[in-house]
Amino acid sequence: MPKVPPRTQMVITAARLFQRNGYCATSWRKLVGTSGAPWGSTQHYFPGGKEQLGVEAIELAGANVARLIEASFANTGSPGEAIQWFFSNSAGRLSKSGFRDGCPVTTVALETVPGSRRMSTACAAAFSLWRDTFARGFIGCGLDHGVAQDWANTVLASFIGALVLARVQQSIEPLDRAATHVSLSLRSAPA
Amino acid sequence: MPKVPPRTQMVITAARLFQRNGYCATSWRKLVGTSGAPWGSTQHYFPGGKEQLGVEAIELAGANVARLIEASFANTGSPGEAIQWFFSNSAGRLSKSGFRDGCPVTTVALETVPGSRRMSTACAAAFSLWRDTFARGFIGCGLDHGVAQDWANTVLASFIGALVLARVQQSIEPLDRAATHVSLSLRSAPA
Repeated sequence: MPKVPPRTQMVITAARLFQRNGYCATSWRKLVGTSGAPWGSTQHYFPGGKEQLGVEAIELAGANVARLIEASFANTGSPGEAIQWFFSNSAGRLSKSGFRDGCPVTTVALETVPGSRRMSTACAAAFSLWRDTFARGFIGCGLDHGVAQDWANTVLASFIGALVLARVQQSIEPLDRAATHVSLSLRSAPA
Repeated sequence: MPKVPPRTQMVITAARLFQRNGYCATSWRKLVGTSGAPWGSTQHYFPGGKEQLGVEAIELAGANVARLIEASFANTGSPGEAIQWFFSNSAGRLSKSGFRDGCPVTTVALETVPGSRRMSTACAAAFSLWRDTFARGFIGCGLDHGVAQDWANTVLASFIGALVLARVQQSIEPLDRAATHVSLSLRSAPA
């Protein structure tokens, strides 16, 4: 496997630490130490410090989740099945991590708004990307553009909320229930 | 107006600061300073320190939101209207605070799980209280027990998620859209 460049490794590490522990509780020292990057190079890689690294970590996490949303439509045959697949995949990851790997954006978003405009913009962009990716998936399944947008909003809010509940309850039940309820409603959605 | 006892004032202040800035970014010094409580008495009031104060702040916030949910059913005539009322009331509060007063539990919950079992338990209990209050409201409107539970889960996840989105986007639109979509779906729910 090709070696990951140290700058990229720092972004990957930051995304994981922010997802698990949040933005405030993750110090620059911890970020550098965990990534294994040489101290001397970090200022060169990220002259904007923790905020710059944070923005890139959120962009990475945003793109990763968007790819999962795309996969959920590619691997299934209907809007309802795609939602079940996506929620179930997320539930599996959460459970496998001992209920530590929740949403990679929500905690950071809530901690940095309105204090850091750059972080807030990155978090809002990640959420928008997910919403648009859901909408594109629904449109690809034949849903009307407006209906697809409505469902994309609904699914995104349900997903973010259910993931908060699942993490706090240390149980995948909220994700399972949200997926089932949304999928059932989607079946009766006008095309 | 009767003077609020200093211990109660500390809990009220803590609930407000945690809601705005999260748990990590709110220091004990800030909590004591903002509440105006005499330094000497704080250890006496809260021998368990920030965690004990945090648990009581979450309990207070949980009870306040549950009262709002009850009011949403008392002030309206149907499940759909109750949801519209509740989301609209929450949107009004968020907007009035300059998009600072988001969910009083979510940020703290994500920051303290799994690090503090006492905080996680308090946050999970607040979410359960809201879910049960929604379910009781739906049952009071004539919905079947199981259907009411399902809708309570759906509404709770949508509310938590939409409030995250509204705060990050600095717009009440996600709450408006979630309320409209959930209310419409509720109208076609079996009783």
